[in-house]
Amino acid sequence: MLKKVLIANRGEIAVRIVRACAEMGIRSVAIYTEPDRYALHVKRADESYSLGDDPLAGYLDPLRIVNLAVETGCDAIHPGYGFLSENAEFARLCEKNNITFVGPKSSVIEKMGDKTAARDSMRDAGVPITPGSDGNLADLDEALALAEEVGYPVMIKATSGGGGRGIRRCDSANELRQQYPRVISEATKAFGSAEVFLEKCIVNPRHIEVQILADSEGNVVHLYERDCSIQRRNQKLIEIAPSPQLTPEQRDYVGGLAVKAAQAVNYENAGTVEFLLTGNEVYFMEMNTRVQVEHTITEQITGIDIVREQLRIASGLPLSYRQQDIAYRGFALQFRINAEDPKNDFLPSFGRITHYYAPGGPGVRVDTAIYTGYEIPPYFDSMCLKLVVWALDWEDAISRGQRALDDMRLHGIKTTENYYKQILNHPDFRSGHFDTSFVPNHPELLNYSNKRRPSAVALALATAIAAHAGW
Amino acid sequence: MLKKVLIANRGEIAVRIVRACAEMGIRSVAIYTEPDRYALHVKRADESYSLGDDPLAGYLDPLRIVNLAVETGCDAIHPGYGFLSENAEFARLCEKNNITFVGPKSSVIEKMGDKTAARDSMRDAGVPITPGSDGNLADLDEALALAEEVGYPVMIKATSGGGGRGIRRCDSANELRQQYPRVISEATKAFGSAEVFLEKCIVNPRHIEVQILADSEGNVVHLYERDCSIQRRNQKLIEIAPSPQLTPEQRDYVGGLAVKAAQAVNYENAGTVEFLLTGNEVYFMEMNTRVQVEHTITEQITGIDIVREQLRIASGLPLSYRQQDIAYRGFALQFRINAEDPKNDFLPSFGRITHYYAPGGPGVRVDTAIYTGYEIPPYFDSMCLKLVVWALDWEDAISRGQRALDDMRLHGIKTTENYYKQILNHPDFRSGHFDTSFVPNHPELLNYSNKRRPSAVALALATAIAAHAGW
Repeated sequence: MLKKVLIANRGEIAVRIVRACAEMGIRSVAIYTEPDRYALHVKRADESYSLGDDPLAGYLDPLRIVNLAVETGCDAIHPGYGFLSENAEFARLCEKNNITFVGPKSSVIEKMGDKTAARDSMRDAGVPITPGSDGNLADLDEALALAEEVGYPVMIKATSGGGGRGIRRCDSANELRQQYPRVISEATKAFGSAEVFLEKCIVNPRHIEVQILADSEGNVVHLYERDCSIQRRNQKLIEIAPSPQLTPEQRDYVGGLAVKAAQAVNYENAGTVEFLLTGNEVYFMEMNTRVQVEHTITEQITGIDIVREQLRIASGLPLSYRQQDIAYRGFALQFRINAEDPKNDFLPSFGRITHYYAPGGPGVRVDTAIYTGYEIPPYFDSMCLKLVVWALDWEDAISRGQRALDDMRLHGIKTTENYYKQILNHPDFRSGHFDTSFVPNHPELLNYSNKRRPSAVALALATAIAAHAGW
Repeated sequence: MLKKVLIANRGEIAVRIVRACAEMGIRSVAIYTEPDRYALHVKRADESYSLGDDPLAGYLDPLRIVNLAVETGCDAIHPGYGFLSENAEFARLCEKNNITFVGPKSSVIEKMGDKTAARDSMRDAGVPITPGSDGNLADLDEALALAEEVGYPVMIKATSGGGGRGIRRCDSANELRQQYPRVISEATKAFGSAEVFLEKCIVNPRHIEVQILADSEGNVVHLYERDCSIQRRNQKLIEIAPSPQLTPEQRDYVGGLAVKAAQAVNYENAGTVEFLLTGNEVYFMEMNTRVQVEHTITEQITGIDIVREQLRIASGLPLSYRQQDIAYRGFALQFRINAEDPKNDFLPSFGRITHYYAPGGPGVRVDTAIYTGYEIPPYFDSMCLKLVVWALDWEDAISRGQRALDDMRLHGIKTTENYYKQILNHPDFRSGHFDTSFVPNHPELLNYSNKRRPSAVALALATAIAAHAGW
């Protein structure tokens, strides 16, 4: 078993990993940059090391992080999500320095990060992919010919892209002519590669992804799916497990596809296979070779601790569970509470948390690194808290979500909290029938009031007087 | 369905009931006395009413509470636990005023509150009871004769007692002669009744209790058992579900006995049947006709919301679940975080909470009414927070308990937190083999240090300097 793990991340996921280490008797090492010196992951890890004043450079410096791991006697690095988590060079540097990278082999990260190589692998393995390029596009002419063949709309995507960036939709040849050079320019700037490819655009799909676990002995299991169709500009807002809109047959089918996809690339550790669903069609979209933000909801329905499994697999242990041991129960929803103002085009709203009180009681889980008095630095992701609710039934899970959102106190910044309450109230959401067009099709859900009902305390005082008068 | 419920309680259980009401669309009404004017249940309920300056009188005044329920248009009263929850007069007053009492009929409360009547009912129903009196004792001579017959040690118990009070153990005839008048005196003072009875003392039993739910149509189900053997002077400290020390056959057997017990008295709503186990023997101890402090752990393993079910049953609805629908998964532990100093004979430690931060992450649930700045009033129960952890395996549940206890920040008062960490570390506890003698037999577990490891922040600063120097 691993003895000491460096966590190459910050925020809630760093705290999440510290907790898993603590439960497993593994020593945890945090890193931080100047704006994070009072961050919770720094306070809760067994050891913490500063990587300098620049807010981001330290978290993105593979050499410095691996050197620190070596110097502090760590035997592994957990990359979390974001930052260097899908950076094959970082994984390779770990391998070279005899530091276990908690994730798949660098060659697998590389292959799945190259979207056309990933498409090729999936096609070869018999996993359905969207109609589109074989490999990268040579030029605009090839793109135009291919688009004619598969039919508009099409997507031009950066081969090295991910996280919803480096993607443009084209509804006509004219648009394709305009967007093609733009995606190339964006891809070059953002990912350091000008390679792009073309896919038929699946219009208003459901976004369904399957959590998998794979050990070094070649065993692969899936932990059922998550429905991430509630998203805005390719950023997930509310995630659900299992999907309320899959039949048991569809559930088994996508689960099986995900296992096949992982086996095809000799995958190891935790990963997610993302699919687009439209009607009865299922298409492979991409594989995320890391723990995901929304792994929590899968933990709630299966009871399996995914980060613990990651650390066990990285220790060379076989999977704790066979497929037939893995059952799911109830429904879990995750709300990504972002420091953003939905009423102002989701503009980031960083600043000081003047008051925070965690929601609690049955079926409520909170993953966060914020606390009262904490100043959210403007340099990082705007997600500041993950609120997860669980209940045996879909309707009860929604009611619990409403209650837990009401229960939470998070003052001092604007958040997406009240916007999510609107979504929970919408009949399409409640019926469990929605796709990725839900958020763009319902701008009216932004017309909510930020006011709370008159403070219960004020009401209590008024009624107390009344009650006294009555006796 | 009920429309508006008055919660005749305070603290975490009042908050728990407010939450259930909120999730079910039921309006909640809180009551409070002067020391509770800033209490969380007052802030979170839809309406709140003061019942005067005396800390306790308002919470214990059946007439005033029922009148308030009528005047504020409530259709039900949820009594929580403690206070008036097992007061048959209170339930009867509700019945007379057409207010639904969320609990069993007053006649059933009365019968189960009378410990000799309860014993009679159970014996008639074929539920095993400990050898002892048929009914109440006439005098000391009868007690001495009976003790000779069943064998020492014996217990003299107040017929109207409960909650671990009004009970004395006698190991010899001499002790019985001494204790007999004392129990009578204590019973008269505490419960207003001089009636006592005798039971053979089950030495060092395991305390196993079964959660049941029963609707108005006569359907009764059990939600498996809780192991409450970790107790001090009859006060539960750590509760576990399911018991790690029952075989599946024993589990089914006690579950079946509990259902039989409930059916025997036409029980309605949620209740708990408590048993003492020794070797392979199982004896009925008592039935608690209310929601219990430790209902949480049963919710965690079964997924069933017990307070929601209470409110549904009180609305006249049938049970949501048949016995075959009720499954349990994993292990849950509840730690009663009491405002007490274990190192000072568990003396209450009331006062101001200078800092509170909830533990979080996977498998952690918190039920509490405290917050940073809250002043724990000295008039009520010392329990200030229930920390519940869950994991698929027993060992993982223990590790999670350790981690969650470490995770929590609760400063300003002394609590039982660090003492529980010692218990979790003990090999007998970890092996799952313990009985009610565990706590008295391990006074050495009180020899812990209250100091935290050197602050992670201080360490971080020191190591940051070292790290900088190294680059």
